[in-house]
Amino acid sequence: MSITSQDFDATLKRAIDSKTKPLGALGRIESLAAQIARIQHSLSPSAETCQLIIFAADHGMAAAGVSAYPQDVTRQMVLNFLSGGAAANVFARSTGADIHVVDSGIAGEAIDDKDLILRRIGAGTANAIETAAMTDEQLAEALEAGKALGGAGNHDVACFGEMGIGNTSSASLVAAKILGVAVADLTGRGTGLDDDGLTRKQELLTRAAGRTASKLDARTALTEYGGFEIAMMAGAMGGAADAGKIVIVDGFIATVAALAARDMFAECDANFVYAHRSAESGHARVLEALNAEPLLDMGMRLGEGTGALLAWPLVKAAAAMLRDMASFDSAGVSGPA
Amino acid sequence: MSITSQDFDATLKRAIDSKTKPLGALGRIESLAAQIARIQHSLSPSAETCQLIIFAADHGMAAAGVSAYPQDVTRQMVLNFLSGGAAANVFARSTGADIHVVDSGIAGEAIDDKDLILRRIGAGTANAIETAAMTDEQLAEALEAGKALGGAGNHDVACFGEMGIGNTSSASLVAAKILGVAVADLTGRGTGLDDDGLTRKQELLTRAAGRTASKLDARTALTEYGGFEIAMMAGAMGGAADAGKIVIVDGFIATVAALAARDMFAECDANFVYAHRSAESGHARVLEALNAEPLLDMGMRLGEGTGALLAWPLVKAAAAMLRDMASFDSAGVSGPA
Repeated sequence: MSITSQDFDATLKRAIDSKTKPLGALGRIESLAAQIARIQHSLSPSAETCQLIIFAADHGMAAAGVSAYPQDVTRQMVLNFLSGGAAANVFARSTGADIHVVDSGIAGEAIDDKDLILRRIGAGTANAIETAAMTDEQLAEALEAGKALGGAGNHDVACFGEMGIGNTSSASLVAAKILGVAVADLTGRGTGLDDDGLTRKQELLTRAAGRTASKLDARTALTEYGGFEIAMMAGAMGGAADAGKIVIVDGFIATVAALAARDMFAECDANFVYAHRSAESGHARVLEALNAEPLLDMGMRLGEGTGALLAWPLVKAAAAMLRDMASFDSAGVSGPA
Repeated sequence: MSITSQDFDATLKRAIDSKTKPLGALGRIESLAAQIARIQHSLSPSAETCQLIIFAADHGMAAAGVSAYPQDVTRQMVLNFLSGGAAANVFARSTGADIHVVDSGIAGEAIDDKDLILRRIGAGTANAIETAAMTDEQLAEALEAGKALGGAGNHDVACFGEMGIGNTSSASLVAAKILGVAVADLTGRGTGLDDDGLTRKQELLTRAAGRTASKLDARTALTEYGGFEIAMMAGAMGGAADAGKIVIVDGFIATVAALAARDMFAECDANFVYAHRSAESGHARVLEALNAEPLLDMGMRLGEGTGALLAWPLVKAAAAMLRDMASFDSAGVSGPA
């Protein structure tokens, strides 16, 4: 830590402690405000504007039966995003966030819609149970496209969401390989598998994991088991952090993208705020590995960036607290007796 | 439960389950949406507008040394609310809520400010360690003023906050008497007492509790130990519920007001949404007695309605989810295979 950042931290602590409230009385809002101040290197930070980008892609594994839903649902949900009817659209309107949808590699023909951003790396990944999900070139292309999208624009806050039938399976495998743990420990019910479905999913993922060494670097893990949307999201997180944005990390899949981003892009995780604790069973383990304390715990497991959008008002309020609250001095309020 | 409400509940469940998301995937947002739908008896509910009313008053007990802050801070903080510099003001602006401040009985002369609503029941309560905090007439006046204020206007959502040096002591005593438990079990550090201060507070409150029977009805508990702001807030919660508003209950003191309101006004608690789990140590016990599951757990303990304001965007999003999300049918999305 440089002397400058030590000085800044001391000034920051004084600024928060001088606000008209008992010491520490805003709890997590105070530590969040401090993180935002460090990201923006400002005692008057701002989290007033927010953009959600949803990355959608398909997974070769879906055909093997790792999800409760048919693969077509990826495409159908993208059309739902484009017509404004999904949970992410509703939450974006409710909170005042902008929303964009990216085709990172949906199966079948490209959807023709002027509002859809086309960054198709392929028409879905290969079946990662049998073979590498993507080539090194595809990974590089996905990361670059993501970095550019994440770094563009001048929103204070960047949220990233995903849609892709089969992508909890992909995320479980990527996380297991980066952390060097058994994939079964990170495998959950996804969109809602029953007990038999979960057992089948665990068997398939254990078989997939057996193809490679027990621990892989992030790039190799993404190439072997990733999805185009997960890789592009990891790139976007790096790009947004590079551009000085606050990155709100959504649920299980986004947290796995954050885990991969942290391994690939130095210091990007200083900009990451973890939105919520997902009901997807592997999430707790990945959060623990990241030493992350999410803001919300609402039993959600939808993806699409919905948890990130619900966390944004807390981030916005935390920045406003530091920027706008009066101090004991400025308001003429007495301190403790 | 009438047949009508059973029918409504079944229709409501179908409406939530038909939304384009895996069954139950929005977790707590879904149960919150269901509660709001029941409050408004509508499948297109709204939580778009929100008003915070802060009730401020002083406590005779403050002179005995139950708080870390001098009594003057109540008045100083009210001036801070009026000039827009407190945390409640900042969070109200950040979330888009209206804010009003009520003098329920601040010590000294009335503050002359056109934006301050005067409902002064007295210039602070009597010292409840030695004698009843207020008369039966004062309680009735506070409840009536609160009911009228809480029921006025047409905001979808009502948040209530408080300011009053010494009021965690008052709230601990009121809750202990309504629940019939030892006051020491509900006594915490308030605005930040050290260990000696906490011991002294527990001794004083135990002495105060010894004046009366171990269990009291809500009205008697408020008369003996209440604050004008706590009683007025309890009345406001009843009035707002009567008017069909969603009531977001803030932290420890507001939850004690909700506990009292529930005992005094039939069925009002169907409209209560609990905002957050306060760091004040008695809060968990009172929440448990109310079978309440707060939305947030941010280690906050400020009061002023700050936790309620931070919970409002979640309430707003939950109503919007039910009202605006597409169904599988309307969006042409396939269900589970």
